[in-house]
This record gives sequence, structure tokens and C-alpha cells, in this order.
Amino acid sequence: MSTNFNVIDGGVTAPIGFSAAGVAAGIKYTNRSDMAMIFSKEPCTVAGTFTSNLVKAAPVVWDMQVVDKSDFAQAVVVNSGIANAATGKQGMDICAGTAEYAAKLLNIPSDAVLIGSTGVIGMQIDMDKVKAGLDMLVPALSDTRKAANDAEKAIMTTDTVPKEVALTTTIGGKKVTFGAMSKGSGMIHPNMCTMLGYICTDCNISKEMLTKALKADVVDTFNMITVDGDTSTNDTLLCLANGMAENQIIDCEGPDFDIFCECLHYINETLAKKMAADGEGATCLFTCRVVGADTKENARVLAKSVVASSLCKAAIYGHDANFGRFLCALGYSGITFDTDKVELYFKSDAGSLLIFKDGAPVPFDEDEATEILSEKEVVVLANMNMGDCFATAWGCDLTYDYVKINADYRS
Amino acid sequence: MSTNFNVIDGGVTAPIGFSAAGVAAGIKYTNRSDMAMIFSKEPCTVAGTFTSNLVKAAPVVWDMQVVDKSDFAQAVVVNSGIANAATGKQGMDICAGTAEYAAKLLNIPSDAVLIGSTGVIGMQIDMDKVKAGLDMLVPALSDTRKAANDAEKAIMTTDTVPKEVALTTTIGGKKVTFGAMSKGSGMIHPNMCTMLGYICTDCNISKEMLTKALKADVVDTFNMITVDGDTSTNDTLLCLANGMAENQIIDCEGPDFDIFCECLHYINETLAKKMAADGEGATCLFTCRVVGADTKENARVLAKSVVASSLCKAAIYGHDANFGRFLCALGYSGITFDTDKVELYFKSDAGSLLIFKDGAPVPFDEDEATEILSEKEVVVLANMNMGDCFATAWGCDLTYDYVKINADYRS
Repeated sequence: MSTNFNVIDGGVTAPIGFSAAGVAAGIKYTNRSDMAMIFSKEPCTVAGTFTSNLVKAAPVVWDMQVVDKSDFAQAVVVNSGIANAATGKQGMDICAGTAEYAAKLLNIPSDAVLIGSTGVIGMQIDMDKVKAGLDMLVPALSDTRKAANDAEKAIMTTDTVPKEVALTTTIGGKKVTFGAMSKGSGMIHPNMCTMLGYICTDCNISKEMLTKALKADVVDTFNMITVDGDTSTNDTLLCLANGMAENQIIDCEGPDFDIFCECLHYINETLAKKMAADGEGATCLFTCRVVGADTKENARVLAKSVVASSLCKAAIYGHDANFGRFLCALGYSGITFDTDKVELYFKSDAGSLLIFKDGAPVPFDEDEATEILSEKEVVVLANMNMGDCFATAWGCDLTYDYVKINADYRS
Repeated sequence: MSTNFNVIDGGVTAPIGFSAAGVAAGIKYTNRSDMAMIFSKEPCTVAGTFTSNLVKAAPVVWDMQVVDKSDFAQAVVVNSGIANAATGKQGMDICAGTAEYAAKLLNIPSDAVLIGSTGVIGMQIDMDKVKAGLDMLVPALSDTRKAANDAEKAIMTTDTVPKEVALTTTIGGKKVTFGAMSKGSGMIHPNMCTMLGYICTDCNISKEMLTKALKADVVDTFNMITVDGDTSTNDTLLCLANGMAENQIIDCEGPDFDIFCECLHYINETLAKKMAADGEGATCLFTCRVVGADTKENARVLAKSVVASSLCKAAIYGHDANFGRFLCALGYSGITFDTDKVELYFKSDAGSLLIFKDGAPVPFDEDEATEILSEKEVVVLANMNMGDCFATAWGCDLTYDYVKINADYRS
């Protein structure tokens, strides 16, 4: 498949003008980094999507105000360990204090500072620790590859690997670069967007078009992953564009906007899949692709119903071709279809197997099925044979380790 | 609380005229019983509620026809091991063949035979084994206490305990008895009703009023439990009333119908709670009670969102007072409320603890919280402070054993 971009090694510091840092501030964790900063030399246009959970963390409320009302954004401060959610007025005061202190150190307005938090809900953050962290972060800011990686590591909670992606493209004759990072990996069932994701680009694009591109794309990327069905209080996806690539501003639809959207989609899908594959306790990426659906939205709902099912997830963990559970999950999705028309396949790098057709099981070789289901990426393909619409959802298997991690996560 | 009934020891054979049996037919399991029968001397009025899953097992389709079209029902045949779901025409033929063979042995019409199956989806049942099972069941039919227990054991899959309840009441001056049994214990997230449940009564009641009572009651009983969020293909709840108590027929609303509904509610709630407490891998019954909601339906949705949350369930397993997860689950339920008004409590036989109020955590003693959360029944009480409506949902904790059971359930 030909694309209009090249994937490169790198993270949030890849585009021109962006620097980053990660430090150990002792917010809650000990012996590891837990505060990150992203900074742009130039003011950025910013768009964001946020959790649909009614209980929104203080930094989500703060960022929604910045995205909505500020003229521009220029810095992001993120801590891990404590989510600053369900923390009342004291939690909002922490956000305001963080922004003010960072703004003073960076010599920018406090309403240009975005804030992210992830970790335990219902615990207050110590402002003195935040200040000490900011005092370390600002002098550590750097546009190196390592600085991006430091920031990625500092925002991890139960993640086992840092998550980044970067690419370059050409827009209006100018080289444009994107760099992004995100973190999972529990309480993942995004509805608007997921956990924490930060996309930086030096592209010159209007706020209106940036917002349009971001909101349209999350529907098929971040909103199509699930780890445990729990929509977080802190889900935040931000895209900052500082315009330093000096392309002619993208302020309407057209070829430039199309390329921008194509790049953004690759970034979002890549991070979303990395998040699903690194779901708490996961041993594999579990994908459901629905084709032949009557509408796009129905395809999405069907695919997501399968990857969200505890029983399907446990079957994937057990490498067990228990296909009835997958059919069952399609059946309770709320979408109408004809069971007799459905075709179900298991697919992976080890092969492809038809397992259900004409309303009844198709005899298959158990050893072959087990082999296919033992790969690091397993796909369940459902052809509804009702139309031309399709969608893909990503999740992970349900393992002992998921329970272990979450039975004693707080303490 | 004064009630109009007395709970008695017993199961489906408690009411006049009902007999039962359980035998080992080797449908799939070995060395255990796996076929059950309930039989009534007299023809029964019957009402049923069934899975809302679009993919309905063959016996569900069969029973829906019997409930809808037959003049009466008189026998129920249930097998465990194989669910007879996603089995196409062959699966329907098995139902017809089972009903015909049983009808001949019992000397009743074949459309008076109800059928239930539970177990693996997508596997065909061997008709010869069913016939051999029926040949053993009919002579074994008995109205004893033991016979009810035999039937309960034969319908178990991953259940660890048989589930029954019985009671007596007085309706229209006559002694009326109810006896019931059910099984769980995975793929439990009823939507219409749950898995397999059979309620027998000697009450004299019209089909219209029996249907009305049953459909109204499942909304607050079976539909309020969840084990794993997966709505089964086989959910079936049947109520058979043979009229042998000789009370004047209940054919309209009034005091007799009210007593009938009160008894039915106790039966349903008791079985539903037993199913939740014996959820796959469960170590405790996890209840969420929502009070002060603005509408009854909102109270139901809020309560169910909490008991369905993987993270809340894992926290209960870890005896971890991670209350933020409970608030989070209320938040993503889709119901609108004011976080600042919510009060959250943990309750059990070991005590009661206020943990969240006025939009912020209330300091609590961790040891006391752990003690409360270590009981066999744990209640999370949420007062929304918005109105007078309330609801209760029941679930269980999420444990290693849930994963273990379901990673290799089929094989």
C-alpha cells in the first residue's frame, strides 16, 4: 500500500521546535521517573479529545479549558502515580498551581500550560513535590531522541514498554514531521479518546482543521481499543502543532489536509494498537475485524463487542478455539444480523481457518487452530455478509496477571 | 420486615404434583450427572423470559415456541455440558427429537416438553445419548427432596454449589407452594433473564398474569446480576404453575396477585444472588446498592455499571479500598449526576465506612476498610442525593480462578 509518509525512529522531539524531559519527582512512585514535560519553542495550535466519563479528573477539566479558551498552548506537564481525579477543589488548585509555576519557569502564560495525570484515583498530589519536579524538568528540556524517551518512560504506570511513533511527510512542498507518545494500560475502554496521548507536529494548521482532523480520527483508532471495559476518568489526547515547518497554513479541506489526516491516522492507530497490545497482563494483541456489515457504525459496535468480551479474551489467552464465545459476543452487541450468513475465521501469522459458516460449525483441525491462536497477534475475522462496511477493534487477552495487577494496584 | 410467606427447605419438588430426577447420560461430562427432568402430574400454565442475545440456542428457540403457542407445558428436560447453540438445523432437530422421545415416555404431547441446554457453544449433541438419558430419567422421577437435589446437580456446569429455594404462602385461603432451581456461573450478564432457572408452583394462575408477574420481576432480579458481562445464548427462566393448590384462579390484579408477586420476587432474588455469589472463580458476593437516584432506571444502570466493572471486581478480590474505581464506574455509566453530591460507603458484616463525600475522599482507616472488604458479602452503597429512587445489583469479585476456568473451559 503506497503512503504519503515515511515512518522514522523518534518520539515527541522529532518535529522542529519540540523538546522534552522526564525526571523522578517522587509524586508517589520511588526509584523511577514520574514527571514529564513537552515544550515548544513557538506557541502551538492545540486540539484535544477527552474522556466521556462524567467523573473527569482535575487535569482533564483544566486541559478542556485551555483547548477551548486559550489563544495557544506551549507546554505539557504530566505526572504518573496519582491521577488527581475525585480530588475536588484541592485537585483543581494543584492544576492551577502547577501551570503557574511551570509558566513562570518557562516564561509563558499559565493558560498555555496543559496538564496530564495518571495513576490512583482519589488521592491528593503534594504541590511541593510538583514544584521540585518542575525545577528539575525545565533545565533538563532537550530536543534529543533520548529526551523523548525519558518523557515516555516518566508517564508509564502499569505499562511494560514506552509507546512512541514518528513520521515525516511533505505538505505544500515543505517537510513536515510528527512525533507522539502515549501510555496505557489498564482502565482502557476509551470513549472519546484514551488515557494519555500527546502528538506533536511542526505542521502549520488552523485550530479548526486540527480539531476536525483529530475528532474524526479517534472514532476509528483510540475509540476502538479496550483492555478492560473501564472508561477512565483521565483519558486525554492532545495534538500540538507549532507551524515551524513553514508550510502554507492548512485552513480548509484539500490535498494538504488529506495528507495531514493520513499521517494523523497512522500515528493514532499505531499508538492505539501499542496500548492494546500492552494492556495490563496481556500476552498478545487480540484484533477483531468485522467486514460485510450494513453500516460503518454497526461494524464498529460488533468488532468492539468481541474484543471487550471477558470470555473471548480468556479463550485467546488459553489458545482455545472456543468460537461460540465470539459468535455469542456478536449476538449480544445489540446489532441485528442473520446468524446463518455469518462467517467466522481465526487468523494470525501461522495461518487462517474458517470455523463457522451457514449457521453451524465448520470442522477444523484443533492443532492447527491452537497454533494460529498462539501467535503474538491474533485476529478474529467476522464477515457478516450484509453489506460493504468494515471496522477493526483491538484488545488483548485476559490473564492471571491482569487480576494480579489490579487486585493490589493501589497499595 | 413482615412477609406473606415462609421459606422452607426444598427445591422444585416442593409444590404439589411436581417430580424431578437427575442422571448421568454422558452428553459430554464423564463421571457426573448431566441430565435433569422436571415433570408435573397436571398440565401447567407456563411463562418464560429468554436471552436477548441475537444468537439464540436451539432450546431457547424451542421453548419460546412452547411458551408462545402450546396450550400447556408438563415437562422440562435439561442437559449440561453442551449448550446446543450455534448448531444450525441439526441443533433444532435435536430439540424436536428430545421432545418427541420424552413425550412418548411420559404420555404427553411433544409440544408440552420444554428443553434447556448449557455448556459449550458450537458443538452438536448426540441424540442416542439423549435417548438413553431419557430412558433413565423417566423411571427415576420422584417428588422427594433428594430428587430435586439430583436435578439441581445435573444442570451445573462450572457452578460449585447447587442452587434452590422454596417457600409456602396462603392465597385465597389455600396453601400454595413454590420450589425453584437455577444454575450459573459464567457468561452471566442477563438481559431479559439469566442462564437456566426453573420455578415450579402449585398455584392456580392464568397464563396472562403469570407472564405479567415474571416479566415485571426479572428487571430487578435476574437482570441485575453480572459475572463477566457476557450475555449468554442460552438464558432461560421458566415458571410452571400446575394449579394443584386449588386456590381460586388468579386472573387479575388484586391481593392474591400481590402475594404471588411477593413470593416470586423472593424466589427470583434469592436465586439471582446465589448465582452471582457462585460466579466463576468468585470468592465473595459483591453488591452495589444505589439510593437517592432521580429515576428507578438510572439507579439500575448505575448499580449495574459498578458490579460489572473489571477494576471494581479486582479491587474487591484484593480487599483494596480503591474507591476511585467505584466512582469511575458510576461516571462512565452514561447517567448524569453531580459528583459533589455523591456519597460512597463500603459496608459488610464487619462494619460501614464513608469513603467519599463533597467531591473529595474522606480520610478512613485502611485496616478497618480491609476488614470490611474481606467478608463473604461486600456492599458498595452510593447515595446520589438526587431523588428517592433506588436499585441493587449483584456480582462477584474477579479472580485468578475466573481466568483459569475460562482459558481452558472447552477442552
